Amino acid sequence: MEIIIRKDTLQRILKDVSKALKNSQSPMKIIVDHQQVTFIAGNEDVLMEISISAQMEDGLTIKRTGSVIISAKYFFDIIKKLPSNIHISLSEQGTINIQSGEIHTKIYSLTDVQTLTIPDGSVGAKLTLDAVQLLTLIKQTVFAAAVQDNRPVLTGVQIVARNGELTFISTDAHRYSISSVNIESPLEMEFIVPHDSLLEWSKLNIQKDEKVSLCLLNSYLVLKRDKCHFYIRLIEGRYPATTDFIPKQNLTSFYVHTPTFLQGVERAALFSDAKKNHHIKLRIQAGRLQISSHAKQIGMIEEWQTIEKLTGETEVEVFLDSHFLLDYLRVVKDEYIRCFYNGSMKPVLFELVNGSRFQHLISPVRSF
Amino acid sequence: MEIIIRKDTLQRILKDVSKALKNSQSPMKIIVDHQQVTFIAGNEDVLMEISISAQMEDGLTIKRTGSVIISAKYFFDIIKKLPSNIHISLSEQGTINIQSGEIHTKIYSLTDVQTLTIPDGSVGAKLTLDAVQLLTLIKQTVFAAAVQDNRPVLTGVQIVARNGELTFISTDAHRYSISSVNIESPLEMEFIVPHDSLLEWSKLNIQKDEKVSLCLLNSYLVLKRDKCHFYIRLIEGRYPATTDFIPKQNLTSFYVHTPTFLQGVERAALFSDAKKNHHIKLRIQAGRLQISSHAKQIGMIEEWQTIEKLTGETEVEVFLDSHFLLDYLRVVKDEYIRCFYNGSMKPVLFELVNGSRFQHLISPVRSF
Repeated sequence: MEIIIRKDTLQRILKDVSKALKNSQSPMKIIVDHQQVTFIAGNEDVLMEISISAQMEDGLTIKRTGSVIISAKYFFDIIKKLPSNIHISLSEQGTINIQSGEIHTKIYSLTDVQTLTIPDGSVGAKLTLDAVQLLTLIKQTVFAAAVQDNRPVLTGVQIVARNGELTFISTDAHRYSISSVNIESPLEMEFIVPHDSLLEWSKLNIQKDEKVSLCLLNSYLVLKRDKCHFYIRLIEGRYPATTDFIPKQNLTSFYVHTPTFLQGVERAALFSDAKKNHHIKLRIQAGRLQISSHAKQIGMIEEWQTIEKLTGETEVEVFLDSHFLLDYLRVVKDEYIRCFYNGSMKPVLFELVNGSRFQHLISPVRSF
Repeated sequence: MEIIIRKDTLQRILKDVSKALKNSQSPMKIIVDHQQVTFIAGNEDVLMEISISAQMEDGLTIKRTGSVIISAKYFFDIIKKLPSNIHISLSEQGTINIQSGEIHTKIYSLTDVQTLTIPDGSVGAKLTLDAVQLLTLIKQTVFAAAVQDNRPVLTGVQIVARNGELTFISTDAHRYSISSVNIESPLEMEFIVPHDSLLEWSKLNIQKDEKVSLCLLNSYLVLKRDKCHFYIRLIEGRYPATTDFIPKQNLTSFYVHTPTFLQGVERAALFSDAKKNHHIKLRIQAGRLQISSHAKQIGMIEEWQTIEKLTGETEVEVFLDSHFLLDYLRVVKDEYIRCFYNGSMKPVLFELVNGSRFQHLISPVRSF
């Protein structure tokens, strides 16, 4: 293999590729054929395949076809420090020669690499939507999945397509997120994917007007954008039934101004963090919301905020985990949210007030 | 004590104060008298004292005098998250009440704090210079001091005022930095201060046109700027004689273009870092400079650079520690430097070519 490529092209690709690398020792495969250059990186959980075509990419010249597997780290580090045009060729001895001006570098290729094989098989029906919509669904659910759990399914996000809706669901047994969008497809499917792999995909350089398609291939979910295919291995197992999690009735409901509430919780979290249990108290009294927290021998904080449209019981007190609340509030982009209280030991429900189908539940803690 | 103060004022001060804190458990003292508010923070090695006067500082109101010692961390964290105007008062129970709008916070004050006492005594003669000059002297020497050494003096920078010159000297026994500026003072003094304390001072928010004065007080060097006094405890002991370190003669000398050379060394360092010993090879041949490095089983790099004004022996080869070379090159702001070679096991000397008195020596390593 032998190509000439521009540094900025290579850096743009490597930046995305690096999202699929577990660590700096990870390998990367480069495949050069007559029309295009393909980069493959990944691990047991995700695989990423990015292609650039000689026709479309300015400054890319394919001189000889072939393929090689190298250490991603050293390749990335060198490319970063080279000037503009880069000449890459594979020698007969299996070393990659990287040349730019009067700078000559060699990297030994890797053998014995078992991974980096794109799954093959026939692709099922696919679902296409705006990349931005998928990003939103991911952002609104991944944070509530379990980081670790005896039940591996809880470390995943359940994805369900049914009745013209695409729904993402996650829960770590203490909190629960559900978010849906309409889809123009009669497709029905249901599967579970690791939340961290979705998060990795969401960090790629995705443009605002891009489309993304979802399809299943063997035991992988494939997220396809123009020249970038992202393979996520599914989690096997049965996701718990969550349809009755959202309470039908409630004792009290009120609207809060999201940024003001977020700041208040951040302040209270200073002290709840100091005592390590992260508990803060929310209290409704005389039509206002009090947020408070205290840490023995350190100090305490107490503040009052205005709320709107209070209905139901007007004297309410609940203790929540400040980190859970912050995780949720930080992904809300809306100015107001509606909170539903249903009893001191019942989960608190949060909803957007603009009609978006994003709901979040947080179970209370037992007190300070 | 009781004051009203603006958030931005307090944040500006706390940002500087935090430089003198060893860790987040460190205490801070606030002293309020009729004219001003003083903040003191520090540890066994450095003490910082910053004052603001009620007359000069917009929005500062002194309501009651007094003093208190609190945990710097919680105070900083809370101030960061409060809105504009902040009301601070000490209660009779020894808690600090911090109030802003409808947000009420209490922090318990600390007792039993032994440090935070500004040394007293009569100040000796002082030396005044531009803060920028002092910053340059510090930057050009601190990196070559030892991080740890059996001889504590080597972890310090030797500061010498003599014959109308102020000179900073440092060495970790493998490299040596010396930098001097002219001073308009007949003052003679000589002492050693910890390099990390100088580094901390250099990170303060220092304005371009500021003056700084140096004086000795008991066993402290005091660096005084307008309202900020920085006390650094001297290192006791005798600094090794270094006056004959700079060689009088040399075999070969040449000029290199600093940024090009720096980039070349950074590239070679990628491989020298991989093999952990950091060795790279510099070689002069046919009037050009070759920079190279190789790492077994990983790869190698080799590049040629142009040099200027080569005199003396024209075939030269030397192995240097790439980290040492990078430490030096990263503090050089000049476009060209002159390198002096004096034999494969003799230190290489680097000088600025614009006449600045900043010289640096690096001992070679034995080969790859």
